[in-house]
Amino acid sequence: MSVESSADRAGMGALPPGSTVGILGGGQLGRMMAIAAASYGLKTHIFAPDADSPAFEVAGKHTVAGYEDEAALVAFAAAVDVVTYEFENIPAESVDLLRRHVPLFPDHKALATTQDRLLEKRFVAALGIPTAPFRDIASRQDLVTALADLGAPAILKTRRFGYDGKGQVKIEVGADLDAALAAIGHAPAILEGFVPFVREVSVVGARDQAGAFAAYDVCENVHRHHILDITTVPSALSAEQTAEAIAAAKAIADALSYVGVLAVEMFVLEGGDSPIVVNEIAPRVHNSGHWTIEGAITSQFAQHIRAVCGWPLGSTRRNGQVEMRNLIGDDVEAWADIVAQPGLHLHLYGKASARPGRKMGHVTRVLPE
Amino acid sequence: MSVESSADRAGMGALPPGSTVGILGGGQLGRMMAIAAASYGLKTHIFAPDADSPAFEVAGKHTVAGYEDEAALVAFAAAVDVVTYEFENIPAESVDLLRRHVPLFPDHKALATTQDRLLEKRFVAALGIPTAPFRDIASRQDLVTALADLGAPAILKTRRFGYDGKGQVKIEVGADLDAALAAIGHAPAILEGFVPFVREVSVVGARDQAGAFAAYDVCENVHRHHILDITTVPSALSAEQTAEAIAAAKAIADALSYVGVLAVEMFVLEGGDSPIVVNEIAPRVHNSGHWTIEGAITSQFAQHIRAVCGWPLGSTRRNGQVEMRNLIGDDVEAWADIVAQPGLHLHLYGKASARPGRKMGHVTRVLPE
Repeated sequence: MSVESSADRAGMGALPPGSTVGILGGGQLGRMMAIAAASYGLKTHIFAPDADSPAFEVAGKHTVAGYEDEAALVAFAAAVDVVTYEFENIPAESVDLLRRHVPLFPDHKALATTQDRLLEKRFVAALGIPTAPFRDIASRQDLVTALADLGAPAILKTRRFGYDGKGQVKIEVGADLDAALAAIGHAPAILEGFVPFVREVSVVGARDQAGAFAAYDVCENVHRHHILDITTVPSALSAEQTAEAIAAAKAIADALSYVGVLAVEMFVLEGGDSPIVVNEIAPRVHNSGHWTIEGAITSQFAQHIRAVCGWPLGSTRRNGQVEMRNLIGDDVEAWADIVAQPGLHLHLYGKASARPGRKMGHVTRVLPE
Repeated sequence: MSVESSADRAGMGALPPGSTVGILGGGQLGRMMAIAAASYGLKTHIFAPDADSPAFEVAGKHTVAGYEDEAALVAFAAAVDVVTYEFENIPAESVDLLRRHVPLFPDHKALATTQDRLLEKRFVAALGIPTAPFRDIASRQDLVTALADLGAPAILKTRRFGYDGKGQVKIEVGADLDAALAAIGHAPAILEGFVPFVREVSVVGARDQAGAFAAYDVCENVHRHHILDITTVPSALSAEQTAEAIAAAKAIADALSYVGVLAVEMFVLEGGDSPIVVNEIAPRVHNSGHWTIEGAITSQFAQHIRAVCGWPLGSTRRNGQVEMRNLIGDDVEAWADIVAQPGLHLHLYGKASARPGRKMGHVTRVLPE
């Protein structure tokens, strides 16, 4: 998993230290990107609607404005050398406006594809990569037909704006379809056939502006209440499955001419040689890659900054056997116990209130292999 | 080198995440402390006289004011929960003012002792720890007497405000003493006898508010033009010398009831079992500890923040064989070659102009052992 490297590559169109990276989004992902950028001598400018955004604390400049505020977006674009983002639900019109003024990575194609579950599934399937069976649901009749086709249980998911289990509902045999459609607000949706997976993994990888791709070792993820709970690396995948998973992520990145870090979430079916099924693409740094801060030579945040600035990728080599645990809601109250264990790495995101389900921080442990 | 740990220790008077750490000084040390504090969910407020201070870029708040600006210091003290600093030459009156309003670590005793080479040498010698032979130089006659006593070559050093070779002059046999005294501005000084050292090392360690001490492995340092060039860890010291070096640092920290990270620079004489001679104490994070960011479980910056916030110390375990190289002046122009080598960690401090002798960044390599 080493990467091709040459000084020439870094020199070609690379933004020099002292340049300003603009980041859309002021949460923990923007915050950790800003910290990584600072270590490279890059300045950051965060754009976010909330005046209390955690990322503002570690950035030299910030703009408080909505993602549809055209004047603010134009001023932001003029103040930075490149734009990236911490979340994929940026309005398409805002993306179009920004990219007329400044390079934006990952680009509008990556965003358009991953903002819409239907387009995303079709894109992955067209690459010959297995996905859950899926159908376009534009009406109640579509849902009736699709259920007859795919069988129950199945998952009804909005095409847009879903994350952490939001915007989706499971449909069991004999379920009330009107209630299910109401539960997702009658939004355009897809129906996904049930995949009897035994584990969930993700591939966090990066592609640079010269087209080089480098993945971290496959991450094995356990969710609780639809939110990532624990990531362990290495995963329990077979060598063949590992190769298949990384090849799928690379094929996706290459097909999108992707620049930056992406995460591809996958299901693993029972049986050591069962195929890997791609579930979802995140066009950004990802919670399942937080372990790379201490667990790999180059963190996913540093890697993303390298890619969007036109620098070559850093080494993705792992430093040991890693476990990352999210601190959700009042889990964060255990901070004093965590820092009292000398080998644990505590990361807190600077959020004032620990609402239930809110990602407040994470803890990483790296054991020598 | 593990540390005693208990959840109780963290809970006793520990500043919780969300607290604000005030940092005097806006250079690279303040910058890297601010980044470490942010990872723990702590806010930072930097106080520095230069509006272009590199640390401002990664801190939520900053004050641009001189270190003798009493009104600014009082307002700063009121805005933060604890004060620490990146350099030891804070005026004593400012320290006294601050500590009437807010806890300050390391404290005024550590500052008073280390701000003055004469007091520092006497303090170390009183602990029974070897130093270079030294004499108090308050007049030309003192210098004549001291030279007759210690012999030439010897080093004339100002008692205060010396760093990176500034404020010192070497006196060879037959030298012009008036010229030497003029070279240091006729400031109060000490004369140090020549120590025929074969290597220079430092011990970077930390003491927490409960009195626990933890040192990193001894750092071996090579200077160029009186500025640190390369640090390698582990050092070539014998096991006995290593134990002696760490015991000296611990004795110094304990005698000062020190809280925070300190660095003790030492000379090693020829011969595998020769004694270690203490040269200088820095009451702060130190350039020779920069390797700990990737090379140890807990970086010196994180460790310092833990100690000043009343948290227990983290593990000082080393991750491999480490080399840290400073980027001085136009060394920084090699940034693109450095990032093209996937295993190197580039750190740049965000300084606009690469003046000769200016510390612009550093590069760390960690090799598995």
